[in-house]
Amino acid sequence: MLLADMRLILASASPRRRELLSGMGAEYEILVPELDERKFIEQELLRRDISPQEQTVLLAGQKALRALEELDEKQDAVVLGVDTSVVVDDVILGKPKDEDDAVEMLMMLSGRAHKVVSGFALVSGDGRRIMDYEETAVFMRAFTEDEARRYVKSEYVLDKAGAYAIQGKAAMFVEKIDGCYFNVVGLPVFRVANSLSQFGIELI
Amino acid sequence: MLLADMRLILASASPRRRELLSGMGAEYEILVPELDERKFIEQELLRRDISPQEQTVLLAGQKALRALEELDEKQDAVVLGVDTSVVVDDVILGKPKDEDDAVEMLMMLSGRAHKVVSGFALVSGDGRRIMDYEETAVFMRAFTEDEARRYVKSEYVLDKAGAYAIQGKAAMFVEKIDGCYFNVVGLPVFRVANSLSQFGIELI
Repeated sequence: MLLADMRLILASASPRRRELLSGMGAEYEILVPELDERKFIEQELLRRDISPQEQTVLLAGQKALRALEELDEKQDAVVLGVDTSVVVDDVILGKPKDEDDAVEMLMMLSGRAHKVVSGFALVSGDGRRIMDYEETAVFMRAFTEDEARRYVKSEYVLDKAGAYAIQGKAAMFVEKIDGCYFNVVGLPVFRVANSLSQFGIELI
Repeated sequence: MLLADMRLILASASPRRRELLSGMGAEYEILVPELDERKFIEQELLRRDISPQEQTVLLAGQKALRALEELDEKQDAVVLGVDTSVVVDDVILGKPKDEDDAVEMLMMLSGRAHKVVSGFALVSGDGRRIMDYEETAVFMRAFTEDEARRYVKSEYVLDKAGAYAIQGKAAMFVEKIDGCYFNVVGLPVFRVANSLSQFGIELI
């Protein structure tokens, strides 16, 4: 691995993103910015007519820019922000409030395709910006409410958009995907690796 | 999880398959049968005009049947055999002999799609059989021989068909997949879960 001269900063508290970024062989620091996501969405995004895709990009950008602001040494830093959403019929499913909400969300995904959209942003202290999103289609088999409830009781889903983890037992509901698998887990590895190389950070 | 009355036996030494099967919440024993795969392929398969898909199914079936034969208590046992191959232009890529061979294989995958085919077989002591295969298309970006060599030096690939692990750094070469992700890792989780339920083994 060549880390060149830029320091990579991950603006995310998600253990899954850390694992994936480490798996790519990246060396990085973590800085989770002060950001009230719900408030940001309500005040900045909901009033405007933007697509779920744009929303994930704006949120990812906001996370990255806030973290960059909070850095003491900005000049040699590249900050990565990511926001992952589950989208059904252009409605964004966030994290479920409780088990009942989780079961209800899962039933919206039963027997059909949905999209997982990850917005990502790379912003550097010297003013460069890459912001885009990656979309993966996920096809789930039809399952019963009983199955959904047993799944929800079998693993912790309250911190997961759309109430499932493809890397967990929900894999047994997923007939196929079309796109980047890691995007569904929470980090579009292929796109991020390619974008990082534009900042001189080569991981292979 | 409901294990009903059947015992599940995995006829594979692969740590990745064990991990995936455990991740599904399955309880199982392991019995790796005595089987000279290379000899079986040469003596039983190469002479006949069979497709790569059929070959993986026959090998998976052979593994499962051999393990079943070796069991002391067969009546309540279901044995799972799996064989995963990387297929390019109907040619099967096996495990590479050495690093040079690995780089050569990877260059065959650069900038194009290939298929990962997993044959699987479930055979029970009471005579039931399910044998089939699952196919996933994997699209890799174009990469240089230098990149392939750096990848091969960065992780152990000599035990992997096609000389790469999608769950490792090769993820950075994979633009998208179409099909079951876990099939590429080595176990078609969705298909196996559905097939197991036909033996009364329900995992969700």
